[in-house]
Amino acid sequence: MRFPEALDELIDFLKLLPGVGRRGAERMALAILDWDPEEQREFGAVVAGIPEKIGKCPRCGAVAAKDQLCDICADLRRDDSQLCVVETISQLQAVEKGHYYRGRYLVLGGRLSPLDGEDGSSLNLALLKERASRPEVKEVILALSSDVEGRATAAYLSELLADLPVKLTRPALGLPAGANLSYADGATIAAAFSGRRDVE
Amino acid sequence: MRFPEALDELIDFLKLLPGVGRRGAERMALAILDWDPEEQREFGAVVAGIPEKIGKCPRCGAVAAKDQLCDICADLRRDDSQLCVVETISQLQAVEKGHYYRGRYLVLGGRLSPLDGEDGSSLNLALLKERASRPEVKEVILALSSDVEGRATAAYLSELLADLPVKLTRPALGLPAGANLSYADGATIAAAFSGRRDVE
Repeated sequence: MRFPEALDELIDFLKLLPGVGRRGAERMALAILDWDPEEQREFGAVVAGIPEKIGKCPRCGAVAAKDQLCDICADLRRDDSQLCVVETISQLQAVEKGHYYRGRYLVLGGRLSPLDGEDGSSLNLALLKERASRPEVKEVILALSSDVEGRATAAYLSELLADLPVKLTRPALGLPAGANLSYADGATIAAAFSGRRDVE
Repeated sequence: MRFPEALDELIDFLKLLPGVGRRGAERMALAILDWDPEEQREFGAVVAGIPEKIGKCPRCGAVAAKDQLCDICADLRRDDSQLCVVETISQLQAVEKGHYYRGRYLVLGGRLSPLDGEDGSSLNLALLKERASRPEVKEVILALSSDVEGRATAAYLSELLADLPVKLTRPALGLPAGANLSYADGATIAAAFSGRRDVE
């Protein structure tokens, strides 16, 4: 059966979401049709209101209410001497889940990936350089993915920040906490052994 | 990090979609934030416009442009003597994919499922009775799922339509076309053997 035009439009938008194919988008659209009209109008208003309500934190590039600092940049208790560079907001959230790091962040908004056409022009590189140049910053932690593109991006950032008087570090590679050695891959085992520590 | 309120609202709505959990909703919301503002406004307008643009076909219960017949009910070439009862629009689409059936449909909008609180009050039972009572209808095909709830619903519908002068049928159970017998489950094998046909 041919769907009404408005339904096809809805499906086309849902297909743009990550992990959603044609059939998933159809299933979602039909589910939305079953909602109360009030919910449909509200959901629509929330989406349409994004440009007016949500923006990027001008200091770190993370998501924030429009024209406001994000809650981490606005938090006066965080340590200004450390700056942690992550690719995405999900990575920032992952670091926060560790409840260990209390410094500031810089969200790149992606990583260098020539094959996907990402040459750095849409990354927050100027913002990073500006933040890392501030006198209070002593250490920049490059918390990028440890895959090929993540390492390439980290190498590029090291170059970019090379002439600044900051210490560049990266999180340790090694065995995941609580993991069984039997299930670790070779690269992780190698990193864990080469970076071994004295038993205290 | 705490998200801005508008983003939390967006995530809460996305979580309502079928198959979307907390993490999936977050990933989708962050993806939507990366869209152009124009796309965000359009997507929002499409969703908010559903109540004004999309409705139910008054004749079969399927989805249709507001205040219009669906394209199948509007098609004069279809056979009015057959009425196929399905639970959902996806099932209707599945039947259409067979390119065999050329009659009319009645979309129940679900099935009897006491455990999920579906006692039939939100199903299109009155519409079904009205449609099946029309003099041109000779056969009603109950194309419901062949699981427990589908069979219970079919049994209930048989009762409901028992005193009407229509033939009640159901699609044949058997081996899927092109399937290897080795992989069929016992119930399907039993149905295929008990319903065996003469080789022509």
